[in-house]
Amino acid sequence: MPLPRQVFIAVIGAGGVGKCFLSQLQQLAAKLSRSPAGPTYLSLILLATSKKSVHYDDYKSLNNWEAELAASTTAPLALPKLADYLVKAPGKVVLVDNTSNQEVADSYPLFLKKGISIVTPNKKAFSSTFQLWTDIFDAAANTHGHGGYIFHESSVGAGLPVISTLKELTETGDEVQRIEGVFSGTMSFLFNSFQPTSGGGGKFSAEVKKAKELGFTEPDPRDDLNGLDVARKLTILARLAGLKVESPTSFPVQSLIPKELESCSSGDEFLQRLPEFDGQMDELKGAAEKEGKVVRFVGSVDVPKGEVKVGLEKFDKSHPIAALKGSDNIIAFYTKRYGDNPLIIQGAGAGGDVTAMGVTGDLVKVLKLLH
Amino acid sequence: MPLPRQVFIAVIGAGGVGKCFLSQLQQLAAKLSRSPAGPTYLSLILLATSKKSVHYDDYKSLNNWEAELAASTTAPLALPKLADYLVKAPGKVVLVDNTSNQEVADSYPLFLKKGISIVTPNKKAFSSTFQLWTDIFDAAANTHGHGGYIFHESSVGAGLPVISTLKELTETGDEVQRIEGVFSGTMSFLFNSFQPTSGGGGKFSAEVKKAKELGFTEPDPRDDLNGLDVARKLTILARLAGLKVESPTSFPVQSLIPKELESCSSGDEFLQRLPEFDGQMDELKGAAEKEGKVVRFVGSVDVPKGEVKVGLEKFDKSHPIAALKGSDNIIAFYTKRYGDNPLIIQGAGAGGDVTAMGVTGDLVKVLKLLH
Repeated sequence: MPLPRQVFIAVIGAGGVGKCFLSQLQQLAAKLSRSPAGPTYLSLILLATSKKSVHYDDYKSLNNWEAELAASTTAPLALPKLADYLVKAPGKVVLVDNTSNQEVADSYPLFLKKGISIVTPNKKAFSSTFQLWTDIFDAAANTHGHGGYIFHESSVGAGLPVISTLKELTETGDEVQRIEGVFSGTMSFLFNSFQPTSGGGGKFSAEVKKAKELGFTEPDPRDDLNGLDVARKLTILARLAGLKVESPTSFPVQSLIPKELESCSSGDEFLQRLPEFDGQMDELKGAAEKEGKVVRFVGSVDVPKGEVKVGLEKFDKSHPIAALKGSDNIIAFYTKRYGDNPLIIQGAGAGGDVTAMGVTGDLVKVLKLLH
Repeated sequence: MPLPRQVFIAVIGAGGVGKCFLSQLQQLAAKLSRSPAGPTYLSLILLATSKKSVHYDDYKSLNNWEAELAASTTAPLALPKLADYLVKAPGKVVLVDNTSNQEVADSYPLFLKKGISIVTPNKKAFSSTFQLWTDIFDAAANTHGHGGYIFHESSVGAGLPVISTLKELTETGDEVQRIEGVFSGTMSFLFNSFQPTSGGGGKFSAEVKKAKELGFTEPDPRDDLNGLDVARKLTILARLAGLKVESPTSFPVQSLIPKELESCSSGDEFLQRLPEFDGQMDELKGAAEKEGKVVRFVGSVDVPKGEVKVGLEKFDKSHPIAALKGSDNIIAFYTKRYGDNPLIIQGAGAGGDVTAMGVTGDLVKVLKLLH
């Protein structure tokens, strides 16, 4: 029997995804501690939010984190100090970044170089400057470097196996020609309701309001409608497919915020004025309808042409992108091996539990590699 | 820089999948030999078919295998002798079994116990007796054992990420409730042509003949129509989902070979007499049509009920299973986390290049774990 081993887990972020992850981590830790292949003990070494942190110097348990975090009066460490603290752990450390914080993302190379592995859904680490992308993967053990491992499945399509599939296509020598899909649960819900394939659908502004009420949008819906979230995901996929995309603003991204409303001082003012533009959206809908098509908000990467774009497009009603339901994502990989019929992955691409699942899945991968 | 390392590859089977794999292996070996993270050298140590073999005692190159195999007059080693030969390699060994041979499958536990890793699309290893399944995974390093690693992505859905996704769902604590889909490229093609969602379609016997002519069936189409290939895949998925399925004949499997034709002495005689039963198939088609549905040949696993079944079912024309194209597979995972809208994977589920891709992808996984 191999010796029991201990791996130390540091978690930043305890919001929607963070809470679900901590619950999954508890379950995983219990399972691994009684693994027939010899136990692995997962010990929480740190739990931090933007405001406070708990340092588990006695590496005890995961069972009481919520109360302990609430009771903490300790401010979080500055990131370089955090790295110094983590490397002192008497074993391998995995940092789980469940934030969407740019500053944390910027410090990944520092953590990786110190041998700390990272799993995260934080899109900003992989969709900001190309320099940060290079610095991260130059330091990571799973690519060129000799530091920690890094995995980020949930940065695109939440727990759907999008990034692992794209990596496997390229690693095994397939040629990815085009990637196309609906990459935002919010945009999926909005357009599936605005123009269902069965006809009908409401005014665009009414659908935005409904989506906000149902919790399908960011607190300020403009943060979804500007297309930046989708542009970040496309940046990640395009880079993995081999394109040197400088940033999520270096290719055409169609914003659904009318120019006239860019200056609104609040999300509420924006929502109030949005109905003024329903006529424009109805025109788009009508034009598509005349061709037997529907309008959807999609992203695509054309690898040979080096083109990335995000915006509205028309699809035949029988097209899988048109037939999407609810807030599902769909991602189609057109490759040399798969020919005309793409490899398609479809399902919920947002939500705490499925996003956390991608993070937990990545943690399992790291644990296998750290054996 | 880490030291260069050498991993030894033994390949059994040089048919449709084997040939594609060897071509992908050449490409992978070239890439890994100049990896910026330090080179890995993949050396072919053995290439065998059921009739002959080539032993590369000098571990040279992959470039000339076809001519060398053709020129070989050496009979293949008996499997226990093969295992003895492979363990003598001065490094880690990966056995790539590109056959669908039961005897080779039966010897997996022997190879694994000797520390030899295995990657394979051979369904028979994972869908025969439950005892063989247990023996394999008791010996494997990625589960309970201390031997070699074993991966078999291509045993279901060829290169589609079906098995890795199911494993990740269960490993991260999701509860798989139902798995449903079209698991055979042949059956997909047959029924998409027999009853297209757009109406029309040919006689069943004519579609079988067409599928055979296009190379979409086994040489004897009865080997597809008996449902056993699909039953084997369902056995694998059900076992991965936690069900103790004794064998692919221990649950209901609908054969499309009419009882009266079971005694046909040849595939040709069978094809000649099949038109006698077109009336029965047209009745099924008509009955589905009346409900606005189409007939498809599907498999499903109901995990809480412990039920597995394979056969014809009716689907609404708007259902993703009905809307499938060409010879594509589709696999839907209904889980606790994904709720009513399943996680769906779709694409080519047969063909040399995509099947070999699953095998090459598994080899890459093993190489990472053997680091």
